[in-house]
Amino acid sequence: MNEINQQSVTVASPATVANIVCGFDILGFAINEPEDTFTLTICEEPGVTIINEDNFNLPTIAEDNVSGAALLAFLEAVPEIKGFKLESNKQIKPGSGIGSSAASAAGAVVAANYLMNNRFTPLELVRFAMVGEKVASGVKHADNIAPAIFGGVTLIRSIFPLDIIPIDAPHLYVTIVHPQIEVRTADARQILKQNVLLKDAIKQWGNIAGLVAGFIQHDYDLISRSLEDVIIEPVRSILIPSFYEIKQKCKEAGALGGGISGSGPSIFMLSKTRAIAENVENIMKEIYNKIGLSYYTHATTINQQGVRIVNK
Amino acid sequence: MNEINQQSVTVASPATVANIVCGFDILGFAINEPEDTFTLTICEEPGVTIINEDNFNLPTIAEDNVSGAALLAFLEAVPEIKGFKLESNKQIKPGSGIGSSAASAAGAVVAANYLMNNRFTPLELVRFAMVGEKVASGVKHADNIAPAIFGGVTLIRSIFPLDIIPIDAPHLYVTIVHPQIEVRTADARQILKQNVLLKDAIKQWGNIAGLVAGFIQHDYDLISRSLEDVIIEPVRSILIPSFYEIKQKCKEAGALGGGISGSGPSIFMLSKTRAIAENVENIMKEIYNKIGLSYYTHATTINQQGVRIVNK
Repeated sequence: MNEINQQSVTVASPATVANIVCGFDILGFAINEPEDTFTLTICEEPGVTIINEDNFNLPTIAEDNVSGAALLAFLEAVPEIKGFKLESNKQIKPGSGIGSSAASAAGAVVAANYLMNNRFTPLELVRFAMVGEKVASGVKHADNIAPAIFGGVTLIRSIFPLDIIPIDAPHLYVTIVHPQIEVRTADARQILKQNVLLKDAIKQWGNIAGLVAGFIQHDYDLISRSLEDVIIEPVRSILIPSFYEIKQKCKEAGALGGGISGSGPSIFMLSKTRAIAENVENIMKEIYNKIGLSYYTHATTINQQGVRIVNK
Repeated sequence: MNEINQQSVTVASPATVANIVCGFDILGFAINEPEDTFTLTICEEPGVTIINEDNFNLPTIAEDNVSGAALLAFLEAVPEIKGFKLESNKQIKPGSGIGSSAASAAGAVVAANYLMNNRFTPLELVRFAMVGEKVASGVKHADNIAPAIFGGVTLIRSIFPLDIIPIDAPHLYVTIVHPQIEVRTADARQILKQNVLLKDAIKQWGNIAGLVAGFIQHDYDLISRSLEDVIIEPVRSILIPSFYEIKQKCKEAGALGGGISGSGPSIFMLSKTRAIAENVENIMKEIYNKIGLSYYTHATTINQQGVRIVNK
């Protein structure tokens, strides 16, 4: 139980989409592209040493770094280890709305757990990683971390107590566009109203129930009908250029539906086939080309595995 | 297509539980006991003739009678039929909160459809029956009618457009207590607040998502954890004597959970075994015996069939 597996490991940690349309704060999924790479090594030096191998200039003081804070929480639970060295090679741009900080936190703790012979359960890893997520957004939310660690679609039924339910879903293609504007998570949270109309809340829970049933029953039509958000999207979409034009044209092209990824600015669309997903990607490009806004796109699939070991 | 199957049929129409805890306005299920019996006969006299064979003194003017109004809506869609005679023998007490009016509406239209060689789909029958439900409560809601017609657990994802999703659920025992007090649906609706806190709405949709996943995945523990209502129950429970005492003691006795049936005053509890369900029934009796309140109880199971033909 207490032995160390090996001294060093490299992991790949996936991007994730949280707030799946009607599933604000409770539903997310992992995607196969982009992904971060982290190499973690047990070392004698106490604490966590961060070495950035990318160009994002993220903090190297462990307490201020998402991976670092998560690893410090992990270290408290394994007193036989003094410290870790983390070589961080991120591809997921911070602030993109596709779970960059969650990938940092999840990747670091899954790597650490691998080195400790997988001593902790996935749920315990989520708890460590949430300490890192708090550094990024000020809130210990789990809706990106859970899918990053579990893979697939995950439901956070409750935060206190933490209750994560993996949701079986059919094969789905995911198209993402990341317009190069900044939407801070804190700002996106601040513009939300604290009160909602009961009748809107009822619509929303009808849709979330339909979406979960659609996923588990592999009913694409039901998934599509349920991808409707009457509460968050009408407020947050104003921060995202051409949001409704993109959504409408992608649905006309056959996408099942989609919306704001996390707190934005990325937009995601789900499709049943690769051909539709690629068509959707072209539509996104055309619209942002037309208005002269820079962007990245990804046409990928749901990642069923979560953080994976790439180099043992 | 247009021929008449036969002249007369008798059906049994089940009681139903709507507003399954966190599933306010969207989730309901049918139960095997109590049930109403209706005999419907095609006749030459225009309109709907109501003959009450029970002692509830329900209106006999078709427009004012739940079954009658539903049958009038049905008749508009089948111009080759002039009229129906309905012999009504209800066992489900009006105002009990276990779908008495829905049983009247659903039973009548399923009987009529049987006589017309099942010309209409279950979804179309729900629409006819909703016209009857409106007579009872002033609102065209479907959360009792849908399970009465479809059987089992049903999700009303949306009312406009009407979208009903049968939810596969594991075998469950249902215990009901109906304290003999009157809670009018209109009153129960009026005391609800029009606004809810976003953070409460998020808790609620976490639970509704968990409940639907728990049903479909036959995960009793998840069903139990998800049977929590932070929005409606805290308000409506004040109309129901000893509500929290009953709920707490039934859960201590092993019930998965439960809450207000429909808009009350009945309380329902779900259990995994018959022994627990019967124990729960005894607890309910003891509590209302102690305070000297009259009641009925039922220990039954989820009805998977909906309205059934009993006499061809």
